[in-house]
Parts: sequence; C-alpha cells; structure tokens
Amino acid sequence: MVLHEVGMRDGLQMEQHTVPTAQKIEWIDRLARTGIDIIQVGSFVHPGKVPQMADTDMLFAELMKPGRKPRTLLFSGLVLNEKGLDRALACGVEMVCLGVSASETHSRKNTGMAIADALERIIATAGRAAAAGLKVQVSVQSAFGCGYEGTVPRERVLEIVRHYLEAGFTAISLADTAGHAVPDQVERMFADARNLDASAGFACHFHNTYGLGLANCNAALKTGVKYVESSVAGLGGCPFTKIAGGNVCTEDFLHMIQRMGFRRDVDLSGCIDVAKSVSAYFGRELPGTVYRVGTIPGE
Amino acid sequence: MVLHEVGMRDGLQMEQHTVPTAQKIEWIDRLARTGIDIIQVGSFVHPGKVPQMADTDMLFAELMKPGRKPRTLLFSGLVLNEKGLDRALACGVEMVCLGVSASETHSRKNTGMAIADALERIIATAGRAAAAGLKVQVSVQSAFGCGYEGTVPRERVLEIVRHYLEAGFTAISLADTAGHAVPDQVERMFADARNLDASAGFACHFHNTYGLGLANCNAALKTGVKYVESSVAGLGGCPFTKIAGGNVCTEDFLHMIQRMGFRRDVDLSGCIDVAKSVSAYFGRELPGTVYRVGTIPGE
Repeated sequence: MVLHEVGMRDGLQMEQHTVPTAQKIEWIDRLARTGIDIIQVGSFVHPGKVPQMADTDMLFAELMKPGRKPRTLLFSGLVLNEKGLDRALACGVEMVCLGVSASETHSRKNTGMAIADALERIIATAGRAAAAGLKVQVSVQSAFGCGYEGTVPRERVLEIVRHYLEAGFTAISLADTAGHAVPDQVERMFADARNLDASAGFACHFHNTYGLGLANCNAALKTGVKYVESSVAGLGGCPFTKIAGGNVCTEDFLHMIQRMGFRRDVDLSGCIDVAKSVSAYFGRELPGTVYRVGTIPGE
Repeated sequence: MVLHEVGMRDGLQMEQHTVPTAQKIEWIDRLARTGIDIIQVGSFVHPGKVPQMADTDMLFAELMKPGRKPRTLLFSGLVLNEKGLDRALACGVEMVCLGVSASETHSRKNTGMAIADALERIIATAGRAAAAGLKVQVSVQSAFGCGYEGTVPRERVLEIVRHYLEAGFTAISLADTAGHAVPDQVERMFADARNLDASAGFACHFHNTYGLGLANCNAALKTGVKYVESSVAGLGGCPFTKIAGGNVCTEDFLHMIQRMGFRRDVDLSGCIDVAKSVSAYFGRELPGTVYRVGTIPGE
C-alpha cells in the first residue's frame, strides 16, 4: 500500500487564507519524516487562478535541494497543461499528476474544453513528462459522480482509462471529486478497471462529503488498489464542484490500516502532530477524528 | 436489511439537557412515519442513574396506545435487570434489548458484576421476557474493543454468543461500544458468529469514534448481518466508556444503502428533517453529514 499525501495541494487549495511558504515547508518536512511515500507539494496552476498554489515552484526549489529529502520519498506536483509542465521540469519535479474529468460540465468549467479535447491534450503533456524521465500519474476526476451532472456513467470512466492504458500510462487514479461514491460502486469500478489491465497501478482518491471516505477506501483496497490519496486532518474540498467535503483524512486512514496490520512503519503520531498544527494554524476544528480523540490507549 | 433507530436511547442518554417527553414523542412520531423498522424509545434504567431516560415508561404508555403506531413498526426498550423488565412488561413493550459487556472492567463498572454473573442474570431476565411473549434481542457490548481494557479477545465475544444461542436467543447484536472496530475485524467477527448459527439474526451497532462507522457497517452487511442500529443525526456516545464517538448516523447510513439500491422504501428526507430538528433543538452541529450537505441533486 502506497500513501500519497495530497493535503498541501488538494487540501489547501480551497483555503482562502494563503499559507506562507515557510509554514508549508515546515508541515511538508514533518510529513516527510513520518514515512509517507509521496507528498503532493502543490499545483502548477496559474497563480492568479489559485493564489494558494502560487509558491509551488518555490516549494520545489527548496524541497528538491540535494540531500534534503529522504531517498524513498517522492514529491509530486499537479500539472494542468504544457505551461505547468514547463514549470515542473524547470524546478526538477520527479513526479507529476495530470488528469481529466469524466463529467463534460466539470471538464468545461475546469479546463474550458470537452472531455475528448482535454484528454488528448493531457495525454500529450503526460507523454512529454514521461519522455523527460518523470514519473507520471494520470487521473479521472469526477469518476464516481459529479456535483454538476450527478451520475457519471461507468463506461465513460473506463473509456478514459482505456485511452490512458493505450497511451502507455499505467499509474491511474480514479478520483471521487464530489464525494458521491458508495462502496459497491467503488468495488465494481476498480474491478472493471483492473480487468482492462491487472498489472496497472490504480490509485483511489475519495472525498468525505457524505461520510463515506474510509468505507470507499476499504472497498478500493479489497479490489487490489495499491495507491491511496489522502489529506492531513481531512483538509480539502474541491473549489470547482458545487459541493465537496474534505479529502479522506490521512491519520484516520492510517489509524484504520495500522489496526488491520498494514503500514505500521509509518509514524501515525507524527501525522497526528501535523494535523494538530494545521488545525491550530487555521484556528478551527478540521474533519479528522483521530487527531482530536487520540489513538486507542494501550495499542 | 432491518433498520433499528437507537438515537432516542443511545443517542440522547449522553445529553446533559433532559429532553421533554413531548419533544421525544414528536421526533419518534416523525421517525415512525419514515418507514424505519424498529425505534428504541428509551431505557428502563434507574431514573436517578440516567435522568434522560426517566420518562421511558411514560413514552411507551403514550406510544403504545391502540391504533397509534404503524403496524409493521416495533418500539424497543433497553432492559438492564429484572426490575427494568417488570417496568417494560407493565407498559406493554413489544421488544426488549438486553446485553452484557465482553470487557470485565466495563461489565463491573456498568453492572457491578463480572461478565459470567452478568450473563447468567441477563439470560434469566431475557428468558422471562421471551416467556412473556416479547421479542428479545440480546447483545454483546464492547465486542470489538473497550475504552478501559483496549483489545477484547474475539473468543470471549464468541463464547457469550454461544451462551446466548444455547439459551435459545437468536437475535444477537454485537456492539462496538467504544468505536474501536476496523472492517476486517468486523468481517471476521460476524463470519465466526454466523458459523456458530447461520440462521441467527445478527445485528451490528457501531460508534464513529475513529470515523469508521459506515466502513464497519458495510463490512458487517457483507457477512450477511441483517439488523443495523443507528442514531438520527449521529447522536450518541457511551457515558460508561472513557471515549466513544456518536453512533453511526441513520441518515448517512440510509443515504449509503439507498445509493446501493437497498431500502428505497424508507423516507430519507423524513429522517433528514428529524436530524435537522434534533440539531436545532440542541443548538449545535451534530456528527451526521447528509443532514447538513443534503442529498445528491438529481438522484
């Protein structure tokens, strides 16, 4: 099981108050020491569109300094277009994440393009990233439902997955951007996706809008999904959908899987400390439960 | 799938402010109209111990008036001892719930007795209830962990289940009083319990202390559990354990299963209305998510 922390990107991008770069560095450094595998640092989006992400290049410049990060840790960055990839390449990013929405309305609102056009461009950009030697993860947003359109047909999601696989991308995240997924839908979707290519590395990304994030993660893990995206303290929500709750909470997810015997190498109390720090910084209670109630005594 | 609403008992019993009987009646009447199958009205505990439950006899006296409730609906009451059963019989209760804890510390703090003694008494009381023609559900509290003791051995839980089955009780609830359960533990526990008697009617009862209530319900349903106990708005927490979050939230659970195709006969919006009313009554946000964000548009 591979843990991909997305709080510094998907979590913070909805926050109105822009967090200083030094504060982000502090949180990222502390998360890096917990043993989490991948940390998403920011998004190479236009700074005017998401001011919270304006320091992404500066963050990478600092974090990628030689000898600074643990060897096994990867820092990832979200890339939305060619210009974003240019920036990512310029600051030495090792892993980029790119995606399209499976909802036409969401795609048009987010990118100004229909799904088919957005997909063609993303595959081209992802190809350039791969050719430059970067690790590439491609994703399908709104894969389990859309805040604008409601139901998203499973076949449309699988069609995008097929395109990714045909283009040679095998790290594929299915994202429940609006938080509409339910466990049996998750099981069926990932089972169908794995039927297209059982050797591909599928990732899941859930939001907790209806309280189902951990139930959906558990369903995804049952189908063999290896990569799980989560956000410290349950920060998050998508600014481009009408309603989206926070991301699955990193400490809550880690608490669950450690009790089931997995990833005991990751420092849960370190994650909890960061969650407490983030909550204190914003001066409000965040959605996570474990950072508030603590772990189970004696275990 | 049978829905057992326990918010008026397990939910309210931790609330310091005593809710007037007329307000409880209003909520229960509204819940009754949603099509929920069983509503737990209160607990026949000593009124001095839990003042919130002091009106339980009065509630039943009103609710059991001839012609008042839907025919398919059951009202249940929690019974802790012989005196409680006397009261339940006196007010014409149709279904009683009785239980013991699988944690010695919890058992002694809750009943003043060791598990073995508490079990003997509960089986005797349950036997008298059954002989009087009542529906009887017996339970194992702290079945997945204890706020005092931490881990509770599965074999100890199964031993209690065995005693219940041998005594002829086949409606058996396994309750995660402290909220420690994780999905794989839930699957294994209920699978083992069903191996003792596959024809028994097992119920699950989870608390959301670590955010896992719905994930655990889903795991339980996979093993064939038919009875699910939940609490409107996610009210709850156990006053006899050190830490316990709210019960699984009724509307959130219903929202999940309806999206998976089950129990579409139950009026979700009616449940949401009651949750809103309970939240407004207490003047605070309760743990449920669906009553706050609403259902998914267009579905």
